[in-house]
Amino acid sequence: MDQGRMCRRQPELLVVGASYVALECAGFLTGIGLDATVMVRSIALRGFDQQMAGLVTDYMEAYGTKFVKNCVPKRVDKLSSGALQVTWTDTHTGSEHKDTYDSVLWAVGRAPETKALGLDKLGVHLKKESGKIIVGADESTSVPSVFAFGDIGEGRPELTPTAIKAGKLLARRLAGQSNELMNYDNVPTTVFTPLEYGCVGLSEEEAEMRHGKDGIEVYHAFYKPLEFSVAERDASQCYLKVVCEREGDQKILGLHFTGPNAGEVTQGFALGLQCGATYSHLLQTVGIHPTCAEELTKVNITKRSGLDATVTGC
Amino acid sequence: MDQGRMCRRQPELLVVGASYVALECAGFLTGIGLDATVMVRSIALRGFDQQMAGLVTDYMEAYGTKFVKNCVPKRVDKLSSGALQVTWTDTHTGSEHKDTYDSVLWAVGRAPETKALGLDKLGVHLKKESGKIIVGADESTSVPSVFAFGDIGEGRPELTPTAIKAGKLLARRLAGQSNELMNYDNVPTTVFTPLEYGCVGLSEEEAEMRHGKDGIEVYHAFYKPLEFSVAERDASQCYLKVVCEREGDQKILGLHFTGPNAGEVTQGFALGLQCGATYSHLLQTVGIHPTCAEELTKVNITKRSGLDATVTGC
Repeated sequence: MDQGRMCRRQPELLVVGASYVALECAGFLTGIGLDATVMVRSIALRGFDQQMAGLVTDYMEAYGTKFVKNCVPKRVDKLSSGALQVTWTDTHTGSEHKDTYDSVLWAVGRAPETKALGLDKLGVHLKKESGKIIVGADESTSVPSVFAFGDIGEGRPELTPTAIKAGKLLARRLAGQSNELMNYDNVPTTVFTPLEYGCVGLSEEEAEMRHGKDGIEVYHAFYKPLEFSVAERDASQCYLKVVCEREGDQKILGLHFTGPNAGEVTQGFALGLQCGATYSHLLQTVGIHPTCAEELTKVNITKRSGLDATVTGC
Repeated sequence: MDQGRMCRRQPELLVVGASYVALECAGFLTGIGLDATVMVRSIALRGFDQQMAGLVTDYMEAYGTKFVKNCVPKRVDKLSSGALQVTWTDTHTGSEHKDTYDSVLWAVGRAPETKALGLDKLGVHLKKESGKIIVGADESTSVPSVFAFGDIGEGRPELTPTAIKAGKLLARRLAGQSNELMNYDNVPTTVFTPLEYGCVGLSEEEAEMRHGKDGIEVYHAFYKPLEFSVAERDASQCYLKVVCEREGDQKILGLHFTGPNAGEVTQGFALGLQCGATYSHLLQTVGIHPTCAEELTKVNITKRSGLDATVTGC
């Protein structure tokens, strides 16, 4: 073994931003051996269920990614050594801090390129703050013959498969073949962080806002993936919750899952939500043993009950 | 490296039987370095979709597991060397063959222990050929106060989660809390062979038998898992098919998938089938990119069309 290599320090990286792209990059860069720090302005994974977001970042911290919270970068100076000196402000205390990094990765989001399109000449209305196009449920704009879909639409998810689906549905409507609108509530997605997070439907916060705290029932469980048991890995952040309407058949409003292969787990459940799945349907579904996904068919403890939701066995 | 270890021959193993347990064992034993041969009496994975079964065994053969087809073992003799000499008959030609193995693993199925129970004294009817208890859709037997669920029932799947679910539903019915019967058609399961195979609902053969060849529409696709692309692995057996009713909304009758994490992929789709999912529901479901499961939401080539179902790109 080359002694020089062993002693070389890990390259230090600063990731600015805490979106899913920021966390995914910080996660895999930590994984390949970089000393990665994430600078978070306010919250991680804005728009996602915040309990789940906390599990994702807790897991990352446990595996070596650092987080600097409530901080905003002010300037970056290249030193004569080649290192990048970053100056930032702590938004809570107002104090200023400095540190040096080998690389700085900006993952602060996208801005729509609407200015150059000359939309003002056509009278297509934009949202001032974001520069995005104001769209209706049918992807219409303020000009009858102009439609917009994908991230360029105000409030639309920044996800390629959603844009593709919305575009196909629009084409069918324009051709008079269908009246079907895109359902933006049931878009499944997965954050490919070291502990993956998959979800479909509403976050607990959003469900509470729409239906009231007493209008929803949240079933939840911690669980231990089989491969974690064999390797004796800590499964503290492996968790799932199913947010349902409280009354009647308990229609499922949102489904959330952290664990291995969360994307593969979540996709099929999205079909279930598309079909109006209820909590009863979920309980009627036979589990596939041994998988992580089967834990979703066994969930039976409500948050309201206050009962312990930690894993109890195979 | 110890030269002696390098030259030692691989232990030779014969697995008798071609059920999912037989194939799973032969698969992982090949994986850990044994020279494994599977002796198949007639077909592999009886009761499962036979096109999918063929993909599973093709993949195993490509990765070194050997198959001896249409053969039945006749006797096993222990030689003075300690090796096991197996004599078998080729059922097609009637000819006899011999070979020696270090181990022989019998995976020829289970027999129900019904004789010792004294069921004949109660008048509980058994199926003669199998020795299993004849049961109704509500798990009833020929004696009103006796119920049977799980593998002991004639024609029931040999799967623990199904038995658990059937028992729970029976308990609820006996307690007068529900009329709900177990739905044995929508039981999802996964064969954990080297290429995993997950399914829920009817095999293509069963769907054809119940609805007629002209009564079903089969959508199918070959696909390439992302991790196969990176490693340049052959994905010839990565395949999915969705068997639907041909008329009306095209209700999904069966869903079949070979590939990585097939169990995790299949579980959620089983919720969809429980909710009466149709082919339209599937197309309306937004894909999660990049996953293997999303391929199921994009399937659009019918077998009937004769179009090429091989993978065309990302």
